[in-house]
Amino acid sequence: MDIGQHTSHQYNQELEHVRNQSLQMGGLVEEQLGKALRALMENDSQLGEEVAYSDYRVNRLEVEIDEACTQIIARRQPAAGDLRLVISLIKSVTDLERIGDEAEKIARHAISTEGLASSLHTALRHLGDHVREMLRRTLDTMARMDAETARQIADSDLQIDAEFDVLSRQLLTHMMEDPRTIRDSLNVLWCARSLERIGDHCKNICEYVIYLVEGKDVRHTNRPKLGAEATP
Amino acid sequence: MDIGQHTSHQYNQELEHVRNQSLQMGGLVEEQLGKALRALMENDSQLGEEVAYSDYRVNRLEVEIDEACTQIIARRQPAAGDLRLVISLIKSVTDLERIGDEAEKIARHAISTEGLASSLHTALRHLGDHVREMLRRTLDTMARMDAETARQIADSDLQIDAEFDVLSRQLLTHMMEDPRTIRDSLNVLWCARSLERIGDHCKNICEYVIYLVEGKDVRHTNRPKLGAEATP
Repeated sequence: MDIGQHTSHQYNQELEHVRNQSLQMGGLVEEQLGKALRALMENDSQLGEEVAYSDYRVNRLEVEIDEACTQIIARRQPAAGDLRLVISLIKSVTDLERIGDEAEKIARHAISTEGLASSLHTALRHLGDHVREMLRRTLDTMARMDAETARQIADSDLQIDAEFDVLSRQLLTHMMEDPRTIRDSLNVLWCARSLERIGDHCKNICEYVIYLVEGKDVRHTNRPKLGAEATP
Repeated sequence: MDIGQHTSHQYNQELEHVRNQSLQMGGLVEEQLGKALRALMENDSQLGEEVAYSDYRVNRLEVEIDEACTQIIARRQPAAGDLRLVISLIKSVTDLERIGDEAEKIARHAISTEGLASSLHTALRHLGDHVREMLRRTLDTMARMDAETARQIADSDLQIDAEFDVLSRQLLTHMMEDPRTIRDSLNVLWCARSLERIGDHCKNICEYVIYLVEGKDVRHTNRPKLGAEATP
């Protein structure tokens, strides 16, 4: 990657700045997810409120980064690797913003529920840990622009999907065995779904990293089409 | 809008072509959603299979349009309205592709369910009709580049969200009253959720139309923050 190797010092700074902004946005989103899960697990509705309130910071960064990228295209007419950087950032911030939205949704569940049954806790905690780790690695690979790791992380989304499937089947059984748990179980199911979605967004970001580094668009190339896979 | 007013005939054609491709992609996605809902309502798993299979066509168009937009930026160095057109298309195709994904999910439910209870049909059919209408109007406003209508459509997403809330509460009651309906109800809930998401994506596309026409980024500007709104 030859980003930031221009004779124009100002241009290098602009590219560096927008890259830093997107990493900052990633850090913020990661923090939001961590707090949202903690709010849910510890039944801390005040922390949930804080996360829901702070989502505007994520949104503001998205708008700022898109604006900065558009300005760079208009003024600097980037080519090759620089253009791929700008395009991949324009795409990635959309996914980061939606990860922020999912974190906000989890936070709102933390506000509205009155504490989860402990058996439901455990399953959700595992999925939450894995998705947080996936997000952490995704942001790391964004920072390093490492296509090989990005490929591994994108592949690991299948595991997240499988974990979600197992959890949603467990919840279905749980609800059928004891209908009094339906409301709680649905809350857990929505949170699990948000986590599964975050995995999808991480995968998307990893695909943009591969595009940035290798110039190859790998989206939709190796997603196995399972037969009548019905889980959402 | 002064799109396609260049002295370079070739450049005009490139802009027109990528715009047409995105409208074609919109048409395809609209068709996919219509068929997915029909498959679900008429319990037609073969039609469901067809929709799930055809999703690759949506994905292929997404990749092609992104590539065409990147080429235009690299070769033509678009400015002002042309640049906004290209950026708004790059953003919009992501939402169109995800509408396609949601249609595919609905189709997969059509494949896996053994027919919905008729009471659940009706509620879902209403939501489906409204979301299809929202998508139809969204694609229309994309074609006309009409910011005023785009604003109205974006606002109507609140109604879709409200309908989804009502439906999900009904389903919760339904499940608690008769636990034998849990599995079916969850299927309906996932489909309703997909429809609600499609509403979100339509709203996003409308916001890109406003950006394209007026040069204003209206995202995140007037979304009311409801207190402890917990529904997903």
